[in-house]
Amino acid sequence: MITRAERESARQRAAAILARTGVTVRQDEIDKMEVADFGLSELEQSGAQIVTLVDTEQIAVKLLIMLPYQTEPEHTHPGVDAYAGKEETIRCEWGELYLYGPGAPTPDPKGHPPEHRRHTYTVWHEYILRPGDQVTFPPHTPHWFQGGPEGAVFWSFSTKATDKQDTFTDPDIQRVTVVVD
Amino acid sequence: MITRAERESARQRAAAILARTGVTVRQDEIDKMEVADFGLSELEQSGAQIVTLVDTEQIAVKLLIMLPYQTEPEHTHPGVDAYAGKEETIRCEWGELYLYGPGAPTPDPKGHPPEHRRHTYTVWHEYILRPGDQVTFPPHTPHWFQGGPEGAVFWSFSTKATDKQDTFTDPDIQRVTVVVD
Repeated sequence: MITRAERESARQRAAAILARTGVTVRQDEIDKMEVADFGLSELEQSGAQIVTLVDTEQIAVKLLIMLPYQTEPEHTHPGVDAYAGKEETIRCEWGELYLYGPGAPTPDPKGHPPEHRRHTYTVWHEYILRPGDQVTFPPHTPHWFQGGPEGAVFWSFSTKATDKQDTFTDPDIQRVTVVVD
Repeated sequence: MITRAERESARQRAAAILARTGVTVRQDEIDKMEVADFGLSELEQSGAQIVTLVDTEQIAVKLLIMLPYQTEPEHTHPGVDAYAGKEETIRCEWGELYLYGPGAPTPDPKGHPPEHRRHTYTVWHEYILRPGDQVTFPPHTPHWFQGGPEGAVFWSFSTKATDKQDTFTDPDIQRVTVVVD
């Protein structure tokens, strides 16, 4: 859980990072920014800020803002009923993003998940994304990512988002963030 | 058809307009910019410049650059085999875009297609898109658009692009542009 004050602080910091990009985002989109702590109650370490631009039954376009060294925990996008699951292209717009997926583990990776949760991170093939770099993951691909020293802003271009169904490796995670006074 | 020189000139002018946005685009993406004249051999009046960022079997993300008052002729995105057809969200990033789709015709519209082709434009419900404004069209929706006085840059976020199958109202149109020396 996070407090309303924590959420507001994260929103403001993320909005300031977003403003360092040159992408046009409406104020009403920024006002609706999702602050996700994945139920871990350690937002500075494990979390993400998400601005949704398009969210239809077919596709989703989101801008994710990572605070410096903030990590979104390892997860996959499973299928739901007839839907094969979310295919996602992650494209860096600003800053530096450390992204991990299946493949040969990268020696000495730049990303460091929270030490007390390291056992819940199982894929270690590293992609260092700088502005304009992108990677596409098919559905069911475990991945996680961390913002660099100044944070990161990246695009998520995908088929239909069904975030609440996302599967996280860490059993402590709840995708819906509880906000308390 | 267009000449190589015309294509190069349009690419350079479109790249200069694109540079007025703050969006991160790689040089290799700009170098591959499509210049489409829709077979009408009047690129300044009827055409579009297209930079593709994502093009998978599931989704496409493109940046379209319209020169001042340049018009992309009326078209729809039909289905192909099992595919229902392209759902498309058009989102203005920079400049002003005059967009037309089905609905009550707008009196005194701002967009003016080439006079000698006006009979091939059948939908006149106007959306004036400024930065951050967007409209989503389901498959099979006829639409056309024109750049404003300084041109326009807009996002096309869509399901799978099958551009070569697009259906144009104007029977003179060929979607594949022929480039000659």
